[in-house]
Amino acid sequence: MSYTAKSFSNEPSGPTVVTETIPGPKGKEAIAKLGEVFDSRCAYFVADYEKSTGNYIVDVDGNVLLDVYAQIASIPLGYNNPNLIEVAKSDKMIRAIVDRPALGNFPGADFEQIQRDLLKHAPKGQTHVWNGLSGADANELAFKAVFFNYLSKKRGFEKPFSPEEEASCMENLAPGNPEIAILSFKRAFHGRLFASGSVTRSKPVHKMDMPSFHWPTAEFPAYKYPLEQFSEENKEEDARCLKIVEERFQNWRCPIAGVIVEPVQSEGGDNHASAEFFQGLRDITLKYGAKLIIDEVQAGCGGTGIMWEHERYNITPPPDLVTFSKKMQSAGYWFHDPELIPNQPYRQFNTWCGDPKGIILAAAICDEIVNNNLLESIRETGDYLYDKLETVQNKYSKIVSNLRGKGKACFIAFDLPSGELRAEFLNKMKLAGVNVGGCAEVGVRLRPGLIFEKKHADIFIAAMDKVLSTL
Amino acid sequence: MSYTAKSFSNEPSGPTVVTETIPGPKGKEAIAKLGEVFDSRCAYFVADYEKSTGNYIVDVDGNVLLDVYAQIASIPLGYNNPNLIEVAKSDKMIRAIVDRPALGNFPGADFEQIQRDLLKHAPKGQTHVWNGLSGADANELAFKAVFFNYLSKKRGFEKPFSPEEEASCMENLAPGNPEIAILSFKRAFHGRLFASGSVTRSKPVHKMDMPSFHWPTAEFPAYKYPLEQFSEENKEEDARCLKIVEERFQNWRCPIAGVIVEPVQSEGGDNHASAEFFQGLRDITLKYGAKLIIDEVQAGCGGTGIMWEHERYNITPPPDLVTFSKKMQSAGYWFHDPELIPNQPYRQFNTWCGDPKGIILAAAICDEIVNNNLLESIRETGDYLYDKLETVQNKYSKIVSNLRGKGKACFIAFDLPSGELRAEFLNKMKLAGVNVGGCAEVGVRLRPGLIFEKKHADIFIAAMDKVLSTL
Repeated sequence: MSYTAKSFSNEPSGPTVVTETIPGPKGKEAIAKLGEVFDSRCAYFVADYEKSTGNYIVDVDGNVLLDVYAQIASIPLGYNNPNLIEVAKSDKMIRAIVDRPALGNFPGADFEQIQRDLLKHAPKGQTHVWNGLSGADANELAFKAVFFNYLSKKRGFEKPFSPEEEASCMENLAPGNPEIAILSFKRAFHGRLFASGSVTRSKPVHKMDMPSFHWPTAEFPAYKYPLEQFSEENKEEDARCLKIVEERFQNWRCPIAGVIVEPVQSEGGDNHASAEFFQGLRDITLKYGAKLIIDEVQAGCGGTGIMWEHERYNITPPPDLVTFSKKMQSAGYWFHDPELIPNQPYRQFNTWCGDPKGIILAAAICDEIVNNNLLESIRETGDYLYDKLETVQNKYSKIVSNLRGKGKACFIAFDLPSGELRAEFLNKMKLAGVNVGGCAEVGVRLRPGLIFEKKHADIFIAAMDKVLSTL
Repeated sequence: MSYTAKSFSNEPSGPTVVTETIPGPKGKEAIAKLGEVFDSRCAYFVADYEKSTGNYIVDVDGNVLLDVYAQIASIPLGYNNPNLIEVAKSDKMIRAIVDRPALGNFPGADFEQIQRDLLKHAPKGQTHVWNGLSGADANELAFKAVFFNYLSKKRGFEKPFSPEEEASCMENLAPGNPEIAILSFKRAFHGRLFASGSVTRSKPVHKMDMPSFHWPTAEFPAYKYPLEQFSEENKEEDARCLKIVEERFQNWRCPIAGVIVEPVQSEGGDNHASAEFFQGLRDITLKYGAKLIIDEVQAGCGGTGIMWEHERYNITPPPDLVTFSKKMQSAGYWFHDPELIPNQPYRQFNTWCGDPKGIILAAAICDEIVNNNLLESIRETGDYLYDKLETVQNKYSKIVSNLRGKGKACFIAFDLPSGELRAEFLNKMKLAGVNVGGCAEVGVRLRPGLIFEKKHADIFIAAMDKVLSTL
């Protein structure tokens, strides 16, 4: 019996669209009223989460949509998952809500086990975790760990801060607050706070008008598809991009302490790269004494058919830090070198040091994925879906291009000819009963939960065929 | 009947200390084991939250301590508060846990009400809120709002970004990413990420080895106590500090778009300032076209006997932004000028745009405070406690000094002669049954929840008297 049949006996057999526009009249009114107390300009529709179930999201107009966007890739196990509801009702969770500890100072007796439950699901080669609150927070905490390590090593791990360092850092000046950088890639997305914004390079709206650190950027491979047809060109593209990374290390105005990279650039357009590229990055970071940070915020937690997407590439030695959030419903970074634990207490510290609620949920989500073979299941769905999408791409070859994500479960994307057509496509897909999202300028990205099955893929393909025939 | 009598019928009548050290043998073992999976070097002890109740925290050794630190000022209504447990068990909360929405894109039908429930408790003069995840996050989101507003106004709110701005910001350079600053004060604490770290000026360990923005710092008043004895000197101190702020605006290397200040500098030593100082800041920010951000992360949510500490000063016009976190168990910034809503959607945006779980809890906490007159109650306790502390200060005048926080409920601090003596005091207080925390180099800060009553104050005073007699 499939997971949805077992866990979501009330999941609809297909979408239902009852309004001529989405949002419909009730949705429009709800967005307007919400706008009085919240910035609702980005709201696609207002959901009724009480009625949503499994792969289906219901809106306040009563539209029932197959959801292949899943809260910007953040709902791994469907709406109102009964097993997660049990976790939410547990005494452990209730205590985590009402007695939220300052984990660093007053951890609870159950926290060791909570953390061990999470650590079971660490990427291969990673043994430790530091907890945060969001993807941006996780990445910035990782940067702190990297900078502390780099500069403590330079200073001598046992050596105290000098009076000059102490005085200068209180004025935000070197040597206490030196210029030191994280390298990131064009089209990367790593968050929207100030350091995470400094490494984000996807769209101007993500970072305009923010003061930022003058950190280096390199180029992420832009492959030609289908991959098998352009293997030689794509290999050259890897070499070209890696050369730029190495040049930055040689020429940048300040030390580069780390490189951050997504295993698949997601917001930036679902840009994939090869095992050779990632190993090349690993080699360069080792050569120049920098840390490699893999940002698994969007790709991680099973969406690509393996728990952590970068594991696919067998990067050797494993990356130094791996950040997570979104589908994990918790955030933080994995690591394995104890040297990345700051040499003094209270350097990596804040009131909450994470959130036990999220950690409990993250472990429960990962357990559910493992115990129900959902990675295997989503890979099967993905292979099935990709085949169908190839047929659609061939049928609409003037509209659909650059189908990508083969072999990566349902972490699939394709391009449309323009932003306008993409917007029309996304809107018509909603009216055809499917909630799907875009990425970069002309991309469409599929991000269903891990409970997306062949029957759901069939509904998606039928809707897509119908919509494309009208474009 | 008092709140604790009504809500915590099982609250102990006093502390019980059963081990010779805290942590005792079980606690030491628990910290060591936790250290395998979490940085436990900062752990004072390991708590048993299942057994903790009301004002009392229980550790794994069975020690029962009166808690006047309350998770670094973050537990407003005691441990295992029965009314919050009901909220934690509610369907609304369970949905918020298992169906966490991307609030910006797919808000739930219940979110408008959830947000309105929170907004009821906004500071005087504030009408809007933007939601975040932690104090540092709230402050950085506030900075974004301030920078967007300042630069959009300069550009023209209706004007699109120029091609030059778009291209330069992708390289982290001006004009898209210009140099622009937030002014903060010496001894301030506003968080430990990169922009929040740039305005934090409390201790080197909070920000050493982090690249930071070269933003200006001014001096926060350092008053002489008792205030009534030094009113003339303290007035001069206000003028001196305000003059420095104004000089920064006149001379800084880049525009200063905002000033961030705590109503009471907490981590930095419980430094208070006068209504005249805050009004002076308001006047200077208005004069130079900058925004005033009040950081209520630690002082806000009733701890000082009013819901928002800065309301005490009747700052006119009200501050532009007020940030909150900690006791609210949620985070974000309040504001009132619609111009602080970015001129384009998706400028202030992220996957989660806050956390309904926390917002639900924040509103419930504030409701509970209001419905049970806990502000009045904590003010009464505070006045009672302050009187007793004055007596203690007089009795131990060679050890205790600078008692401060009069009329601010139990948001009280005092100094000891040295860091060593402070450490000894805090440790001995635990062994006398009281968990209390330090601030800055030699300060002791009291941060009980709002359910701290006279009977608890008596226990605190008795323990303090006993401990001081041994120093």
